[in-house]
Amino acid sequence: MLEVMIGVRYMHRFFLGFLFVVFASFNAIANESKPNITEFMLENGLRLVVIPDRRAPVVTHMAWYKVGSADDPKGSSGIAHFFEHLMFKGTSTYKNSEFSSAVSAIGGQENAFTSWDYTAYYQKVSPSALADMMKYEADRMRNLVLTEDVFLPERDVILEERSGRVDRSPSAILSEFSRAALHVNHPYSIPIIGWEHEIENLQMDDALAFYEKWYQPWNAIVVVAGDVDPQETLKLAQATYGKIVATAKPSQRKWTSSPAPVVAQTLEYRDERVTQPSWQRTFRAPSYLIAEKGEAEALDLLSTIMGGSATSRFQKEIVLEQELATAAGAFYQGSSRDMSSFGFYAVPRGDTKIDDLAKAVESQVDKLLKEGVTQEELDRARQIYLKTIIYSQDSQITLARIFGSVIAIGGSVEDFTSWPDRLRKVTVEDVNKVARKYLDRSRSITSRLLPKEG
Amino acid sequence: MLEVMIGVRYMHRFFLGFLFVVFASFNAIANESKPNITEFMLENGLRLVVIPDRRAPVVTHMAWYKVGSADDPKGSSGIAHFFEHLMFKGTSTYKNSEFSSAVSAIGGQENAFTSWDYTAYYQKVSPSALADMMKYEADRMRNLVLTEDVFLPERDVILEERSGRVDRSPSAILSEFSRAALHVNHPYSIPIIGWEHEIENLQMDDALAFYEKWYQPWNAIVVVAGDVDPQETLKLAQATYGKIVATAKPSQRKWTSSPAPVVAQTLEYRDERVTQPSWQRTFRAPSYLIAEKGEAEALDLLSTIMGGSATSRFQKEIVLEQELATAAGAFYQGSSRDMSSFGFYAVPRGDTKIDDLAKAVESQVDKLLKEGVTQEELDRARQIYLKTIIYSQDSQITLARIFGSVIAIGGSVEDFTSWPDRLRKVTVEDVNKVARKYLDRSRSITSRLLPKEG
Repeated sequence: MLEVMIGVRYMHRFFLGFLFVVFASFNAIANESKPNITEFMLENGLRLVVIPDRRAPVVTHMAWYKVGSADDPKGSSGIAHFFEHLMFKGTSTYKNSEFSSAVSAIGGQENAFTSWDYTAYYQKVSPSALADMMKYEADRMRNLVLTEDVFLPERDVILEERSGRVDRSPSAILSEFSRAALHVNHPYSIPIIGWEHEIENLQMDDALAFYEKWYQPWNAIVVVAGDVDPQETLKLAQATYGKIVATAKPSQRKWTSSPAPVVAQTLEYRDERVTQPSWQRTFRAPSYLIAEKGEAEALDLLSTIMGGSATSRFQKEIVLEQELATAAGAFYQGSSRDMSSFGFYAVPRGDTKIDDLAKAVESQVDKLLKEGVTQEELDRARQIYLKTIIYSQDSQITLARIFGSVIAIGGSVEDFTSWPDRLRKVTVEDVNKVARKYLDRSRSITSRLLPKEG
Repeated sequence: MLEVMIGVRYMHRFFLGFLFVVFASFNAIANESKPNITEFMLENGLRLVVIPDRRAPVVTHMAWYKVGSADDPKGSSGIAHFFEHLMFKGTSTYKNSEFSSAVSAIGGQENAFTSWDYTAYYQKVSPSALADMMKYEADRMRNLVLTEDVFLPERDVILEERSGRVDRSPSAILSEFSRAALHVNHPYSIPIIGWEHEIENLQMDDALAFYEKWYQPWNAIVVVAGDVDPQETLKLAQATYGKIVATAKPSQRKWTSSPAPVVAQTLEYRDERVTQPSWQRTFRAPSYLIAEKGEAEALDLLSTIMGGSATSRFQKEIVLEQELATAAGAFYQGSSRDMSSFGFYAVPRGDTKIDDLAKAVESQVDKLLKEGVTQEELDRARQIYLKTIIYSQDSQITLARIFGSVIAIGGSVEDFTSWPDRLRKVTVEDVNKVARKYLDRSRSITSRLLPKEG
């Protein structure tokens, strides 16, 4: 039926890989003669971004809203994601599923996703269907018809979704509490799907208030990537989105922030369903958007050096040399609107004790902090990063997703033009500096996923 | 100057001992022929509780508000406590400090305190001054004059208070994060004094909104304990508090709640200022108000058996026999409006390693869970509890505090009449049942306070 359910675990994986994909794709564009992306602002505040992509007679149409789970009101966790579901219900113009049926009838694809920072809806169709897609999408921005008949059964669907994605997954259960520990007093501590006891209490009024507050043209970004002409696309947008009259004034996103971390926390979750133990340590680290100049780029390369490739330190030392892990890596989640994270993970091999594995990782990190990285390592990591970029040939959906997400979190298309150069400017000293600044074990969050004892 | 500052650490200690004091005092009353407490409700919703206490020609006058730090709006932590300070500033009737000067001029005492559940103000004076105290207290309930001249310097005072109570105290620093871990997604995770970065951003409008929302007669409980006549006291109250016209409708206290705990968390804080390491483990446990029948009583006796007296298991085994600790105890915080905690703590002796001490405590807890307590231990704990009750002769302020706090959290005077009997009914099975229900290590929060390494 509807492929709209992007839950906690999937989002997590998605985010881990997302920044890389973002930059990979961007560079592909940057390597073209000129990306020639065109941006427009309609009179009602809606932003339109047109990305030429003439590789095939297809167009991707995405509507992004600058609202996500981090905007869930206190006690109403899950409402942003819930709303993503509700957007597929009927409007005063079209009945339930009519939009989806139309997409499907012409062999198109559609999907939607919710993150902490944004919510987005898209269709991939032939260019001749773009006008229709805009008509439907503009319609549901303001004309949803929400009744208890629609709302209540969907709440059960979401509770079932939560049950499947979280309660049946030991790693997802642990991950919810690790996030809460990493993001004390910050809305990134909210699970995207919501806490179960709060989903159960979500009311239709919560959804109506959320819709009224955030689903407005001034809060939307429409991205069209494909075989289209910018001016023609603008005309289509004006004839559909341009007719929308906002019914509420622009809202400020008000997020609380975390106190400075000062304690080291270890979370251990044991579950009889765990067949593969794992270990993870995360540190708070700034995203590209809020990092000091050059820090995010250095963190990306640091993550590649430590655990982002087949020649990374973890891979060479822990996986291949010491044979303690089947996998060991590093990650940096640079693509957030607010404070994000840098982390290490490892999966023990055979009978390796999780404590021994943790010590092996710690020993690598201690060495990093003491001796730093070498110029050779940095150059190789940069090469790997750039090579993967060159080899990556991403889908049109990814293209649209890059620019939609960047603008949705408060960046701009232009933010990316300087990215490859900034990456090239990162020095050994830059990498060592961010490592020492952010990888402080006494302020880290460690997660241990283990089978039940005895 | 003003003795109004009850900060995080003091409140913590206060709460640890408070329930015991509450019941001790109550029993002292219950053992009298008849406590003869009189309750009135004024037309504007204000509740008046008169407690006869003719031991001395003195009266304690307390104004309680059913609002505390757990009601701090999202992102405005500290506002309830901040407001406690502001209540000592001038009103449209009396200038800054005039009330305090009046109390001091007649040799009276005054103080105020903020908890997560309530905020209270009191004066202890001679009975002839009661009418005056009511006049001043009723006045500041609605006539405070708040200006930037008052607000901004007080914010600096509070930041300095926080610096003294939290930032200069390693145990308080750790305690803030332990609370946050124990009370994920619940407002008990808020430090009473507020997170520093949020105090810095508190604005006068926050204070004005808080005052308007909560400082209203329908949200107040006035407790008068002392050498007074109930009907005379009612007349005085009617002539002062009775004149107050509410300017807002009653507000519901809306608190979010925690997800069911499923992970074990360990928090470690190292600080060069730590000269005495310590270890603590807490479990979520229901308060008297929300516990199932008999559970809270059993938890109180369990805490006495394990670590609440000179003959407790911890004292005998860990302190005296094994000589691992200079102190080891148990605590149960039964006097909360919502989900509370049960815990163990230990302070290592000499060179005892914190891990060895933790193992010794765990071994005692394992034994408890496996073998349970004995009838003899239960009887002895009950005796100790009752004896301490009999011996305790509390101050009038404590008397007033008991009933004010009980009513402020939603209980009633009558809730206490059955308490000694309920305590007598607790069986070995009851104690073993709550131990096994609540002391689950895999869902506990452990805190380790240690000096800096190396």
